Amino acid sequence: MIIHMAQGATPEQAQRVIDRIARDYGLRCETIVSDTTVIGVTGIASVIDEGRITELPGVERVIRITEKFKDASRTFHREDTIVRVGGRVLVGGDHLTVFGGPCAIESEHQALDSARMAKAAGVDILRAFVDKSRTSPYDYRGLELRRGLEIAAAMKAETGLPIVSELIDLRHLEAFLEAGVDVIQVGARSAQYSPLLEELARIDVPIVFKHGFGNDMGEWLSGAAYIMSGIDREGRSTPHGNRNVILCYRGIKSFESETRFGADIAMIPLVRQKSHLPLIADPSHSSGDRKLVERVAFGFIAAGANGIEFDIHSNPAEALCDGKQAVGAEAGRIIQKMHAIHALLADVGMETGASKAVAVG
Amino acid sequence: MIIHMAQGATPEQAQRVIDRIARDYGLRCETIVSDTTVIGVTGIASVIDEGRITELPGVERVIRITEKFKDASRTFHREDTIVRVGGRVLVGGDHLTVFGGPCAIESEHQALDSARMAKAAGVDILRAFVDKSRTSPYDYRGLELRRGLEIAAAMKAETGLPIVSELIDLRHLEAFLEAGVDVIQVGARSAQYSPLLEELARIDVPIVFKHGFGNDMGEWLSGAAYIMSGIDREGRSTPHGNRNVILCYRGIKSFESETRFGADIAMIPLVRQKSHLPLIADPSHSSGDRKLVERVAFGFIAAGANGIEFDIHSNPAEALCDGKQAVGAEAGRIIQKMHAIHALLADVGMETGASKAVAVG
Amino acid sequence: MIIHMAQGATPEQAQRVIDRIARDYGLRCETIVSDTTVIGVTGIASVIDEGRITELPGVERVIRITEKFKDASRTFHREDTIVRVGGRVLVGGDHLTVFGGPCAIESEHQALDSARMAKAAGVDILRAFVDKSRTSPYDYRGLELRRGLEIAAAMKAETGLPIVSELIDLRHLEAFLEAGVDVIQVGARSAQYSPLLEELARIDVPIVFKHGFGNDMGEWLSGAAYIMSGIDREGRSTPHGNRNVILCYRGIKSFESETRFGADIAMIPLVRQKSHLPLIADPSHSSGDRKLVERVAFGFIAAGANGIEFDIHSNPAEALCDGKQAVGAEAGRIIQKMHAIHALLADVGMETGASKAVAVG
Amino acid sequence: MIIHMAQGATPEQAQRVIDRIARDYGLRCETIVSDTTVIGVTGIASVIDEGRITELPGVERVIRITEKFKDASRTFHREDTIVRVGGRVLVGGDHLTVFGGPCAIESEHQALDSARMAKAAGVDILRAFVDKSRTSPYDYRGLELRRGLEIAAAMKAETGLPIVSELIDLRHLEAFLEAGVDVIQVGARSAQYSPLLEELARIDVPIVFKHGFGNDMGEWLSGAAYIMSGIDREGRSTPHGNRNVILCYRGIKSFESETRFGADIAMIPLVRQKSHLPLIADPSHSSGDRKLVERVAFGFIAAGANGIEFDIHSNPAEALCDGKQAVGAEAGRIIQKMHAIHALLADVGMETGASKAVAVG
Repeated sequence: MIIHMAQGATPEQAQRVIDRIARDYGLRCETIVSDTTVIGVTGIASVIDEGRITELPGVERVIRITEKFKDASRTFHREDTIVRVGGRVLVGGDHLTVFGGPCAIESEHQALDSARMAKAAGVDILRAFVDKSRTSPYDYRGLELRRGLEIAAAMKAETGLPIVSELIDLRHLEAFLEAGVDVIQVGARSAQYSPLLEELARIDVPIVFKHGFGNDMGEWLSGAAYIMSGIDREGRSTPHGNRNVILCYRGIKSFESETRFGADIAMIPLVRQKSHLPLIADPSHSSGDRKLVERVAFGFIAAGANGIEFDIHSNPAEALCDGKQAVGAEAGRIIQKMHAIHALLADVGMETGASKAVAVG
Repeated sequence: MIIHMAQGATPEQAQRVIDRIARDYGLRCETIVSDTTVIGVTGIASVIDEGRITELPGVERVIRITEKFKDASRTFHREDTIVRVGGRVLVGGDHLTVFGGPCAIESEHQALDSARMAKAAGVDILRAFVDKSRTSPYDYRGLELRRGLEIAAAMKAETGLPIVSELIDLRHLEAFLEAGVDVIQVGARSAQYSPLLEELARIDVPIVFKHGFGNDMGEWLSGAAYIMSGIDREGRSTPHGNRNVILCYRGIKSFESETRFGADIAMIPLVRQKSHLPLIADPSHSSGDRKLVERVAFGFIAAGANGIEFDIHSNPAEALCDGKQAVGAEAGRIIQKMHAIHALLADVGMETGASKAVAVG
Repeated sequence: MIIHMAQGATPEQAQRVIDRIARDYGLRCETIVSDTTVIGVTGIASVIDEGRITELPGVERVIRITEKFKDASRTFHREDTIVRVGGRVLVGGDHLTVFGGPCAIESEHQALDSARMAKAAGVDILRAFVDKSRTSPYDYRGLELRRGLEIAAAMKAETGLPIVSELIDLRHLEAFLEAGVDVIQVGARSAQYSPLLEELARIDVPIVFKHGFGNDMGEWLSGAAYIMSGIDREGRSTPHGNRNVILCYRGIKSFESETRFGADIAMIPLVRQKSHLPLIADPSHSSGDRKLVERVAFGFIAAGANGIEFDIHSNPAEALCDGKQAVGAEAGRIIQKMHAIHALLADVGMETGASKAVAVG
Repeated sequence: MIIHMAQGATPEQAQRVIDRIARDYGLRCETIVSDTTVIGVTGIASVIDEGRITELPGVERVIRITEKFKDASRTFHREDTIVRVGGRVLVGGDHLTVFGGPCAIESEHQALDSARMAKAAGVDILRAFVDKSRTSPYDYRGLELRRGLEIAAAMKAETGLPIVSELIDLRHLEAFLEAGVDVIQVGARSAQYSPLLEELARIDVPIVFKHGFGNDMGEWLSGAAYIMSGIDREGRSTPHGNRNVILCYRGIKSFESETRFGADIAMIPLVRQKSHLPLIADPSHSSGDRKLVERVAFGFIAAGANGIEFDIHSNPAEALCDGKQAVGAEAGRIIQKMHAIHALLADVGMETGASKAVAVG
């Protein structure tokens, strides 16, 4: 961590910064005089709360060198994390894993039809979404919970595939686990809701962790660090935390209104380089349009994603939720091409080795 | 609601749209042929889920005329809503109300000192924040809950002012109410967490409702509609919903990195025109810098906000949270000038009358 | 074009809208009553200036159905445009074309070395950039013009490749053409400078047209329409306009600060669908980091771009401009893989057929 | 300037950075070891091109302490710059100056009518816009140039007010000066077009300088530095440069689609603190809606702007350009209130003193 003092800051103000860092974090500092006085903290400063420093008089700017999302950072964990789902499906490293299925469970008939279609298309992990987080209270938010979870279990039994389901209400966690949900997804609207993240730190079921559409990379990986570190509200670590986190990129808000969200393709290799966690991407919710989904999925895979999660519906035009972005029978062809692209680029590598010097600025 | 069919869409596709709207919502349509076929839904279409229409084959675009955030919209409720807090403080209409106090309760001493300073400065409703929502798990997240609430109650007793406190964990709601919290705040990171909003629909304590920093106006007012409508996950309305919602603007993410968030000044008159709810704004969290807070606060008031919520700390340089943006003893002068600006503009009006024809595009 | 009247707008106000459209554009209207009165313009309304309608009393919103960027739109020109460069290289349709070379010409030695490296790597069209548009006046802006153009000509002679060069100052156009520049590039900072675009409408040399980093798709394609339509400041068409426009996507500003620009991968298939013009993309300037360039380039190709333009430098660490994002000897391997991805996806298609009904909203 | 080396960077790589800075800029460095090696440049590093450093192997990040926009920065020029217009109107410091008039000259009748209305309302400097920069080539771009300038001169003669007019085509500069234009405006679409800025550096007529809607503060003030420094394309300074620059804030693109641009109110006090130049703001083009203009104007003044530029039209509903955002007869009342707000806050100050230590980060 580097602290820039303002022009005209006094030596006493600089000393107060140095003293606080010593007192609160037990770390030592050195100073140099560049355009103004610059203080460098020696040693690993990743847990310093920079707000505690910027508020001191005379401080102009605090710059973090080590990323704050320590548990999720490749700096502290060089090897790719590979998450095992349902005892057999692997996510991360050199594996390409496809998550797919209907955006939401609407009825037993629709769910099982879509599940069979998804399996036939080559999906590895089946979407079985009971709760739907919606912007408007007037929109469809899912079947009654128990009924939804029964159907989710039936989808799993019918196909033999592990299932992923979004948990919104933290009070439903037990019911999800009892119903046999293999992967719990955290959606955009819950991605910074810390009580939910803290609950997920207490289990070891794999988590698909999306970012909010207003979150940058640091916020996203800090959310993952909540789940992984298991640090609770009072600042105490739990015995383990949950290391089985799969990141899912879904694009952010931008001023371009022609696509639903802006899915920055550079985030795929960047996050692979910055974090050791598996990274998948969601072409359905980022683009919002089935006419774009296929090409966006290809782009994500070519850019180095470890997999894709996308909406497959047996009858998109009758979907109660987001049917516009679901693909139908063409899913099989899309998955085949994704595997072909992945195989073609198997020898390219990702420049994730932390031992190489890099210019990221 | 207007539906544009794509070029080349067939008459059968247009008829399917008309049939679905009749079947699912009981509404009638008329069509005209502009560049392509255009279908207009007659009557109030505010509860149609547009996703159910866009997914139909041949549909190019669906445009909502009536806003979806019905309960929060001035279209359906022309008069200003005025919220009464703690039996005596009024928020909304022609009143100017100042919320202020420390960003977080750190200790009894700091909290009471800051509370006294805030009262002396002229604050109407006191910030007594026990929980802190933080991006990183390694940062300070507040005192132990019971202890924090005791201090909050002491702040209220000491000053005689009503208190506002952010509720993050929905399981803490009872404890907040028992401790005598007068206004419950919903913060940016919880603003789209529907289980929390649904809980707040079941009480009638006033709510300060912020938007997420990735939310646009429609999402923000739809969140307010969750609290106001009391529609639950299964789509059932509760007996009342909570009408005592105070909107709080705090800026959004933008590409400008020199300010913490982009607080669009035009949102103040716009939201006053679009919604009947009281609107306050937060100059501390939007600008992130005490050197900007005063002028930003003046700007919000001059633009027509019904009040301000800002951080006042008895010793900003020792704050455990966001000290950089807190003001100290200058709070009194700032509040005085806000009242003077408000008085100066008392005769200007806000063009909120729904009877005048307006060009908003 | 659809015009929504505000709630409470009078019949006289609606009639005034209809009268203006008849008077100024000779087009007829029909009306329907949805939530409010809606007026639809019959016939092709692509040239109506919507500002002339929104300003009328009682108008709430004007919605354009036909895109305004008529000359660049696939609606009016279904077949892919293929641009021929230097008599032999084709850009667009099923061709994959690689533009590459140094970010800027710094010296004869560096330019020729980089040119030879680019040719050996498999580049089709060589970057020979004489002018550099820079944010800051204190940064390197290129060699003296005549000297720079001589070296550009030498790069062309040495490699036999056609060259592309950015034109900033419109007064230099003659010199560029005399020096044998085969493709003129318009950069982000000039993308909405209409006097330059009008000059380029008067020639038929191919243009690589980037968008500004604050431009959305409509603004970008409207810029292309300036060049293609040849409409001058007084509203008169020139005899032809310049149809040889190649679009180049380079990402936009976003709140994510970890990548230089946000390059939304969905824009690749979307722009291919919306416009008949060839579309290339720039992985160097969008990501700003050579560690990301390779994977971003693969992503663009897999998503359906007609080609790539990227920075290749014989000695990136000594570049005077943007060396951080230039690739060196690895360029050959990258280009080979791009061709392999393109071949793999040759049978996929782009859903550009305007005859199919589509849901874009 | 501070350079962070990457983890694992070698001592030789750090030395190469130090050597380049010595060789190219004659500046000395010191190093400290924080989490990684950190190099600080001693002395004023404002003219270093950071791209020349980030491209070196082993460099992770380069951080500028001194802003690059030296000529426009308050760091190097503490006193407010006050610009004199037409021999008598002052802009900057404690003065409040109102620029107003029609968005564009459409006819002699409309221009003179609007000019008289603007004068009666209390405008100090009259908008007399001949050229209009438009996104689409199909929209109105202004009268024939000579005719337009004649009318501009007539507006000046009729009212006795100095006139401001936007220069788009740099080849028209002479004609503008001959017609007696008192202030030349640079618009959003030309704000980074360096050949135009270089021309304006050679005169001393005052310039109103807007930023592009994709520009951040650093890019905006760097554009001002082009005009002020007079550094030409070859890096040579002209004898003087043009110091008479008035900044005009007009908001940026954001994901919020309900307002035309996002006008961050915090930018007003921030830019006043960072730059010594006068700062005005444009409520018409930022909000895009006359129903918002008045309150947005009040917000800008309360936040500390030195003035306002806004559209006043004698008959907004018949305007050929941007009539939706123009105000009519209410302009006088708005201007009166702006002066009242300005007077009310005359004693508040702007915290622009560079001698106080500040936390800006």
